[in-house]
Amino acid sequence: MQAAVLREFHQPLEVEEVQIEAPQRGEIVVRIAASGVCRSDLHVQEERSPVARLPMVLGHEGAGVVEELGAGVESLAVGDHVVVALFGPCGTCGDCRAGDIVSCMSETRQNNMFGLMPDGTTRLRLDGAPVHPMVGSGSLAELAVVREAQAVKIDPEIPLDQACLAGCGVTTGVGAALNAAQVTPGSSVAVVGCGGVGLNVVQGARIAGAARILAVDTQATKLDLASDLGATDPVHLAQGQSVTDAIQAVVPGGVDFAFEVIGKPEIVAQAFAATRSGGTTVMVGSPPSGADIAVDGRLLFSDRKLVGTLGGGNVPQRDIPRLMEFYRQGSLKLEPLISQRLPLTQVNEAFEALVTGELARSVIVF
Amino acid sequence: MQAAVLREFHQPLEVEEVQIEAPQRGEIVVRIAASGVCRSDLHVQEERSPVARLPMVLGHEGAGVVEELGAGVESLAVGDHVVVALFGPCGTCGDCRAGDIVSCMSETRQNNMFGLMPDGTTRLRLDGAPVHPMVGSGSLAELAVVREAQAVKIDPEIPLDQACLAGCGVTTGVGAALNAAQVTPGSSVAVVGCGGVGLNVVQGARIAGAARILAVDTQATKLDLASDLGATDPVHLAQGQSVTDAIQAVVPGGVDFAFEVIGKPEIVAQAFAATRSGGTTVMVGSPPSGADIAVDGRLLFSDRKLVGTLGGGNVPQRDIPRLMEFYRQGSLKLEPLISQRLPLTQVNEAFEALVTGELARSVIVF
Repeated sequence: MQAAVLREFHQPLEVEEVQIEAPQRGEIVVRIAASGVCRSDLHVQEERSPVARLPMVLGHEGAGVVEELGAGVESLAVGDHVVVALFGPCGTCGDCRAGDIVSCMSETRQNNMFGLMPDGTTRLRLDGAPVHPMVGSGSLAELAVVREAQAVKIDPEIPLDQACLAGCGVTTGVGAALNAAQVTPGSSVAVVGCGGVGLNVVQGARIAGAARILAVDTQATKLDLASDLGATDPVHLAQGQSVTDAIQAVVPGGVDFAFEVIGKPEIVAQAFAATRSGGTTVMVGSPPSGADIAVDGRLLFSDRKLVGTLGGGNVPQRDIPRLMEFYRQGSLKLEPLISQRLPLTQVNEAFEALVTGELARSVIVF
Repeated sequence: MQAAVLREFHQPLEVEEVQIEAPQRGEIVVRIAASGVCRSDLHVQEERSPVARLPMVLGHEGAGVVEELGAGVESLAVGDHVVVALFGPCGTCGDCRAGDIVSCMSETRQNNMFGLMPDGTTRLRLDGAPVHPMVGSGSLAELAVVREAQAVKIDPEIPLDQACLAGCGVTTGVGAALNAAQVTPGSSVAVVGCGGVGLNVVQGARIAGAARILAVDTQATKLDLASDLGATDPVHLAQGQSVTDAIQAVVPGGVDFAFEVIGKPEIVAQAFAATRSGGTTVMVGSPPSGADIAVDGRLLFSDRKLVGTLGGGNVPQRDIPRLMEFYRQGSLKLEPLISQRLPLTQVNEAFEALVTGELARSVIVF
């Protein structure tokens, strides 16, 4: 099968033939119909992601149709439409059994993060050597072998090229608002960085009933899109302008909730300083490996919170169906998030669009 | 009346005659029976507190008897026993009227923090010039003029030399556990720094039903006291040993809740690194002015929370009566917190005990 492989950091992906092995116990084969391309894919290419293990099939925002079942798979059938989630909880560790699935840090999940099955192997081969599917998904490929726990069945009437976004960007963004921050009705929210994830923080804040939603970005086109998706106040950040000043010019005294959706430590600090006493800042963007996040001690001391979230605190089997229901009811919009649809052969164009930062989301369709 | 005045930073307090003016509308005079001496008093003396305005009558952990009422005071009567709280909400700003009293940042509260009445004046005079009572309390004095909202009536059967601790140390410590962290039953908790406030975090964690309570300190005597108050695991920190290592040696994988109760940015970072994924770190200690708090970005990103709290997120009229009820029921212990009782003339000995860090709490009795 054809897959987009990263063989060396800082090099383009190569779309090439990858050998796929049969699914083992508890695993399924998904024929990928569509996969979004996310900034975290770019971070792997740029050698700044802790999950990188080369060679790697990138992609972690896929949806498709179940093609084959391994032994013991009971919750899915061939032909089911599924979203491949960002992670699959092990289901057996103390945290999972206690219902705290987000905290699962079992060996199964650790392996999963590095593109390995629970036994430490992979089902993909290139020239006879193992290839890692990114976070156990590897959705920039015609086929993916994933654990049953990582695939979430969805209504087959939902277009797969929209549903795939629930694999990462939409769940992360909406989850950051609903799970990590627990945005409250009537509150004021600032979303700093209105790319593929940030736009979904805007949607999550709207779904949660926020009264003021400030969308902050340097690019006017992204602000237009944010307004279409529910932002009440577009804030066009001038070159060199502090995020703190830009937000407090709109909401003096500071916002109840601020979200940093870029991954820059200094922007996290500025967003934090833009919240009011009692406010919450959520770092949604992935910071560079080894970086510290520093905030003003006096502001922290004055009843502020700084919250980190890996993928929006989502429990796949709880949150992906919930998102699909929001979509069905019209409160979650997916089509406007898609800037362009490309075939797999043009996957490097999608990565270039992430570098220039001009588009919301590129989706690779198979 | 006699009061302990700080005239110059880094100098001893002077116990001297201070003139007191009559209470104005909404104000009362309290005859102080006892006042604890807290590290925040020391921070003023050491020129590292943002609330310092010299000359200042120190003390903010007092209890006493209402001696005189200003006009319009309806909730208190002469003879009532009261604890003077760390702050008195204004009651009229949007936050107060919305019930979010902790977030009150009205001009009244700002003035209050700097030892001023709502109109920006003070009722204390030294050589004809205004003197600031620390955070509107100034309890290291025979008398204090405070706003009605800052005095909380208590059961007169509770000894005032114990009740005074509810003015700051006990409310802050217990509040950090109950309000800021919301410690859950069965959870694991580490308290780093077992001084007057840290010991009360231990008590708060016990009241909240924590299963494991690690008390971390360099001084064995404080660990003994922490064990008496409910700590399950005393952790004697060796010189140069990392707090992270010391905690994770007891709870591998990290604790659910960590509290830094010292005020050192590097210890906040170590405590943060000692929590598990999904864990919460509360910075209870007051960091030096101008200091940033920096935590490992990867650990933050992996679903951890950093929470600041000014005085434990307490609402005086809600939390002080609750603490007094815990005391009455025996679940909150006050007497063991008191290391020594001293007359006002020996107030500087209480400050020296804070510098050496060997005692839990000194209480000045009048």
